[in-house]
Amino acid sequence: MRTQVCIIGGGPSGLLLGQLCHQAGIDAIVLERRTKDHVLSRIRAGVLEQGLINLLEEARVPTRMGTEGYPHDGTVISFEDMEVRIDFTKHTGTAVMVYGQTEVTRDLYAAREQTGGTTLFEVDEVEIHNAALEGDEGASVTFMHQGTRKTIECDYIAGCDGFHGPSRQAIPADKRKEFERVYPFGWLGVLSETKPAHHELIYANSERGFALSSMRNENLSRYYIQAPLTDKVADWSDDAFWEEFKRRIPRRVAEQMETGPTIEKSIAPLRGFVCEPMQYGRLFLAGDAAHIVPPTGAKGLNTAASDVHYLFRALQACYLDKDPKALGGYSEKALARVWKTQRFSWWMTKTLHRFPDTDPYELHIQRAEIEHLASTESMQKTMAINYVGLPY
Amino acid sequence: MRTQVCIIGGGPSGLLLGQLCHQAGIDAIVLERRTKDHVLSRIRAGVLEQGLINLLEEARVPTRMGTEGYPHDGTVISFEDMEVRIDFTKHTGTAVMVYGQTEVTRDLYAAREQTGGTTLFEVDEVEIHNAALEGDEGASVTFMHQGTRKTIECDYIAGCDGFHGPSRQAIPADKRKEFERVYPFGWLGVLSETKPAHHELIYANSERGFALSSMRNENLSRYYIQAPLTDKVADWSDDAFWEEFKRRIPRRVAEQMETGPTIEKSIAPLRGFVCEPMQYGRLFLAGDAAHIVPPTGAKGLNTAASDVHYLFRALQACYLDKDPKALGGYSEKALARVWKTQRFSWWMTKTLHRFPDTDPYELHIQRAEIEHLASTESMQKTMAINYVGLPY
Repeated sequence: MRTQVCIIGGGPSGLLLGQLCHQAGIDAIVLERRTKDHVLSRIRAGVLEQGLINLLEEARVPTRMGTEGYPHDGTVISFEDMEVRIDFTKHTGTAVMVYGQTEVTRDLYAAREQTGGTTLFEVDEVEIHNAALEGDEGASVTFMHQGTRKTIECDYIAGCDGFHGPSRQAIPADKRKEFERVYPFGWLGVLSETKPAHHELIYANSERGFALSSMRNENLSRYYIQAPLTDKVADWSDDAFWEEFKRRIPRRVAEQMETGPTIEKSIAPLRGFVCEPMQYGRLFLAGDAAHIVPPTGAKGLNTAASDVHYLFRALQACYLDKDPKALGGYSEKALARVWKTQRFSWWMTKTLHRFPDTDPYELHIQRAEIEHLASTESMQKTMAINYVGLPY
Repeated sequence: MRTQVCIIGGGPSGLLLGQLCHQAGIDAIVLERRTKDHVLSRIRAGVLEQGLINLLEEARVPTRMGTEGYPHDGTVISFEDMEVRIDFTKHTGTAVMVYGQTEVTRDLYAAREQTGGTTLFEVDEVEIHNAALEGDEGASVTFMHQGTRKTIECDYIAGCDGFHGPSRQAIPADKRKEFERVYPFGWLGVLSETKPAHHELIYANSERGFALSSMRNENLSRYYIQAPLTDKVADWSDDAFWEEFKRRIPRRVAEQMETGPTIEKSIAPLRGFVCEPMQYGRLFLAGDAAHIVPPTGAKGLNTAASDVHYLFRALQACYLDKDPKALGGYSEKALARVWKTQRFSWWMTKTLHRFPDTDPYELHIQRAEIEHLASTESMQKTMAINYVGLPY
């Protein structure tokens, strides 16, 4: 097989890049390690920046956002019983869209099938060859598929295969640097078929730790609490979760919220991670393959989308404007925005969580940070600008 | 002796409060542990907020700011060779005034002498009695002065005697809480009779650590570099200082700056500290007696001035409007602003210094913070609002 761009990873980044390429007449094949059903069973974040929505439109991906998405004009930050509402629309003219990452992926698969793009599922033992620009041979990707070893010859490789995928590892260790911040706690999250506690998200810093009140739709709530990494899901009965969650969100909300059986429960660690550069010869990393953010602020999928934007613009310049040098600017452009989203996610995380070493001085600084936010329009605007998504 | 307000401490806070009281017809005596010459020999910060200037005007203190002060419309923040100018006037309509704290104190002493206020110097063994509201006896302050033990009976006591003074200690340990952040480095500062390196202050984060390029006037520069707390002044020759300083500020400034003999050299530790509450019965703490900030952002004297503002307003309400309950609101009002200046000073300090444990991830976050500042108007405005001084 031969293609122009071999995309490793059939999650939202790889599929979005695939559809953008298709619309631009650039040939691309998507390789996915799991089945489509497995990819669609993953529960991920659910707050989309307008930039991602614009890319879906540019890729002509029909979505169900018009009927199933929920535009959010603002969000609530609380510190104990103090609440600050951040008005996105007032400060930026833009809203965010509550629409699950899983739904985006479903829409992308539907579009891919409709346009006839090649996607190979259950590929294994993926290896990247000749990514470096030296040498005469072109790049290729080999892998096991349906019991045989196959090869795709290609001009470029897009590594959209997540944190654990082989793409990043294909960059020689001496050609990349990795930067990491591991947080000393996780998020215990539940899904529940109940009416959301509040019509907007609430990011709560309470004396018992962080909580996030979120939702998927009018009858599907998504809630999180900060929990020790040593906790197991089995330690948390539904009752225990609800009791703890209610103690962390503002009382007025807790007092009237609906609870019920949870339909999913999981614990995830929090981590910041960046790999530099995001390019090695003909190989380009995008999304989780190159960087991870803690979920505070919902920047994971959205930052993957900004990578896809920069990579696609460079591929357009390469194939349509015959300017292959444009690809050389990808890593620097993508990383400038990546670090700003790392900064924002780090700020949200450290401002809203109780750390094991949060001392009384630091606790006052956290409170002062929220009071400063409450009393300073320009700080609210700064937060809104970051939350709805920095310009590409 | 008897007075309405006994002010302990003849630094700028105590003197400013004394002159405000005088203008309002409230009787006050100032007690100072050292001589006037000693107080005036202390070299302190030199950036004044408009709020402090307004208080000096309200207290009818003639100053030499009109001829000897330098209004600054902005400041420069740098990260290695990247520079961001923060325009105070554009964002807030206000400037700051470069005018030494020592000069403010000199002006205050001149005003105090001119209006005939009582100031006792070289008082020692100061003790505060009956500060608590319980009991029939009024408050008093006893002290040694000119070889004899003296007593001042008073309605209220203003503790303006700095971090090491007796006032804070007069609050029983179980009635106060202290919050502290000790930074793992100090500032080595020099005064030099040279033309300042730049017409505005430069706060520089360089790979060799923090530096501040500041000034007193057109021929008197004030420069600082971050230095290990274990360093001694004797370790630093003038040449070594200049060489190190130049390596930390933006190259374009370093290349054309003037150097010369230094006329003062000292190392100061950096600390954040707050005592809560700032009132105990008839005793009110103001300025360094209650809180310390690291010097990054020049909030020490300016926060003392905001305390004096709140305390004086409460004394006015008490004596002129016969509303002594107003004094009960002092601590809460003062502390709300104190913690916001702690937050700002902490943010400036952590964003601009290299800490012993600054890892490569955190270094990127620092850089992203400065890049975010450079690219985000609302963040510049937030910094300007804090730098020129939050409203009282």
